[in-house]
Amino acid sequence: MAFDDLLAANRTYADDFQNGGFDGIAKAGVAMVTCMDSRIDPLKMIGLEPGDAKILRNPGGRVTDQVLVAVVLGVTLLQVRRVLVIQHTRCAMASAPEAELQARVGAATGTDASWMSLGAITDQESTIRADVHKIESHPLVPDEIEVGGFVYDVDSGLLTPVA
Amino acid sequence: MAFDDLLAANRTYADDFQNGGFDGIAKAGVAMVTCMDSRIDPLKMIGLEPGDAKILRNPGGRVTDQVLVAVVLGVTLLQVRRVLVIQHTRCAMASAPEAELQARVGAATGTDASWMSLGAITDQESTIRADVHKIESHPLVPDEIEVGGFVYDVDSGLLTPVA
Repeated sequence: MAFDDLLAANRTYADDFQNGGFDGIAKAGVAMVTCMDSRIDPLKMIGLEPGDAKILRNPGGRVTDQVLVAVVLGVTLLQVRRVLVIQHTRCAMASAPEAELQARVGAATGTDASWMSLGAITDQESTIRADVHKIESHPLVPDEIEVGGFVYDVDSGLLTPVA
Repeated sequence: MAFDDLLAANRTYADDFQNGGFDGIAKAGVAMVTCMDSRIDPLKMIGLEPGDAKILRNPGGRVTDQVLVAVVLGVTLLQVRRVLVIQHTRCAMASAPEAELQARVGAATGTDASWMSLGAITDQESTIRADVHKIESHPLVPDEIEVGGFVYDVDSGLLTPVA
């Protein structure tokens, strides 16, 4: 089967598994929204460990409807108190305008991709600010929840707050 | 500031950062769609490391429109060849019907939450099968891409394929 190697690695992981019986609470009270990018190590980059945080990842690290559901569930039922919205440098989603991204996908598949909305990001800082505001202004997110926007530098490992 | 402790931890992380100059390619050719749950360690559970895979996470681990964008970008531009769709045992999204989840959120906030669609999952195996099919049948996902559905047991650490 196509996944045999990964399932074998999973059995090795499970042989040594110590975390059974944990609940789904975010122990450090943190949720992070960030990109799917393979260069991002969400927990380690802020000094946390498995069990500590809810992690939401999608292309670009945007606050989508599902992210809002996640934040609402997190702050109401899972002890989330702080939310970080993190985009990153050299992000493919911010590398080109929508039409050019669609053209790249189309060229790679040999199929027209101009019908598919990809969500290219034209200004990272302004979308981060707008996404932070989306969470802060949500009617089911209490005022005391802290929400911060940041850019992660994939070459230095540093997070910079967006004013 | 509300994030000082996490930013201090990030500076420590960056002091020791060795991965500058990496590109966004998924080195192991893997993308994983899974839940935001704090008990899930996506890379380690299949023996991978930072740089190896694209990770998509949302409530429940569903194949949303943004996940489809991610998979299309992954398979066309970022060398993704295999996609794992993973839900998990004891998931809050599958713990109660939609109306009951909404009632729990409403009770926690003291505000009516029945207007917000949360996306409760009523049958995990059938939604996994449907989500796998969504990816396989997408016109911009080539036939040779392997897509598999799995349930992750948060108490044993084991992944089980969904037939």
